[in-house]
Amino acid sequence: MTRVAIVGGTGELGLGLAVRLSKRHQVVVGSRDPSRAKDAASKATGLSGGKVEGGTNQEAALWCEVAVLAIPELPSDETLLSIKPAVAGKLVVSPIVPMTVRDGLFVPALESGSAAERVSSVLQTRVASAFHTVPAARLLDADTALDYDVLVTADTRDVYAEVAALVSSIEGLRPLYAGPLRNSRMLETMTPTLLNVGKLNKIKSPSIKVV
Amino acid sequence: MTRVAIVGGTGELGLGLAVRLSKRHQVVVGSRDPSRAKDAASKATGLSGGKVEGGTNQEAALWCEVAVLAIPELPSDETLLSIKPAVAGKLVVSPIVPMTVRDGLFVPALESGSAAERVSSVLQTRVASAFHTVPAARLLDADTALDYDVLVTADTRDVYAEVAALVSSIEGLRPLYAGPLRNSRMLETMTPTLLNVGKLNKIKSPSIKVV
Repeated sequence: MTRVAIVGGTGELGLGLAVRLSKRHQVVVGSRDPSRAKDAASKATGLSGGKVEGGTNQEAALWCEVAVLAIPELPSDETLLSIKPAVAGKLVVSPIVPMTVRDGLFVPALESGSAAERVSSVLQTRVASAFHTVPAARLLDADTALDYDVLVTADTRDVYAEVAALVSSIEGLRPLYAGPLRNSRMLETMTPTLLNVGKLNKIKSPSIKVV
Repeated sequence: MTRVAIVGGTGELGLGLAVRLSKRHQVVVGSRDPSRAKDAASKATGLSGGKVEGGTNQEAALWCEVAVLAIPELPSDETLLSIKPAVAGKLVVSPIVPMTVRDGLFVPALESGSAAERVSSVLQTRVASAFHTVPAARLLDADTALDYDVLVTADTRDVYAEVAALVSSIEGLRPLYAGPLRNSRMLETMTPTLLNVGKLNKIKSPSIKVV
């Protein structure tokens, strides 16, 4: 059992991860606004049957062993710096996918590099990226059996192993190592690709399996 | 039945596509060197049980209705210009994935844009991209049942439908539309990602399914 903070966790992905992770771990949902965090936590508690708490991002980050940054877009340096002291020496997981819409389809928002590398350069702790292609809607429905692969980038096999353990703790998710953090752009590109494929081919909540 | 040219088709992917496509279509493998093309054609004929012919790239391109550019890297303008008159008004399919190796792992070779867009800008005909993530080794083994998704970019739904018909003509491949050709970079990024995942997690001939 690990103490997991879902920083910025009031969106769909954050809630979904809270629902699934709280079956095996202690989970605190963080938000800039603590009352939104409490609301999200009680919603996640209701969906999971487990117990999810809420607090500020700083409180969640200070308390946790692992912080998942469930932020829907590239976080500002200000947001990252506000949790930097709290996550020092801890594992931080970035599922962040900066996307923009062009003619009704998604494209990566960053010209180069990745959200995970930017997070790493500010936070200066162990950062990995994962969970980019897990559909939030499926996570939120705690009764749905999952069967997805989760590609992970991390600069060392040791950090990968930590994240792999977290991923595997959600039933139906298989972690796969995809190389160092600088490969995160390749993973962050898969999400807009999948969302477009879902939209254009009428596939609901598309995800991937490596076969 | 369509007349399909596999331009630059003496590599593994070209041969594999020739093997599979020749079950339903007339296939000519092209090469700059016609004797290499003949060798590849007889090899493909042996593997498929169908009949594959060989010729120069220009001969194959002139004869065909659809040209697949099974070239392992970004083709030079010279190569493209040599077939440009022959493919005018025809459908050209790019499975091209420019990759380079960094510290033993694959990364996209192009800083921006895609092979498919470059092909399109030179050839000035209907260009689509597809087949990026279909493992050549599995195609080559004609007895192996395939079960993969093939993401396709094309600027119109009509061009997509042409490519989708070609993809579907290979048993076990499901075409999925991924948007206009400018999204091809997103597909061309999936190949190095998958190859890395295969290498790092000991998965042979990795491919994808959208679930």
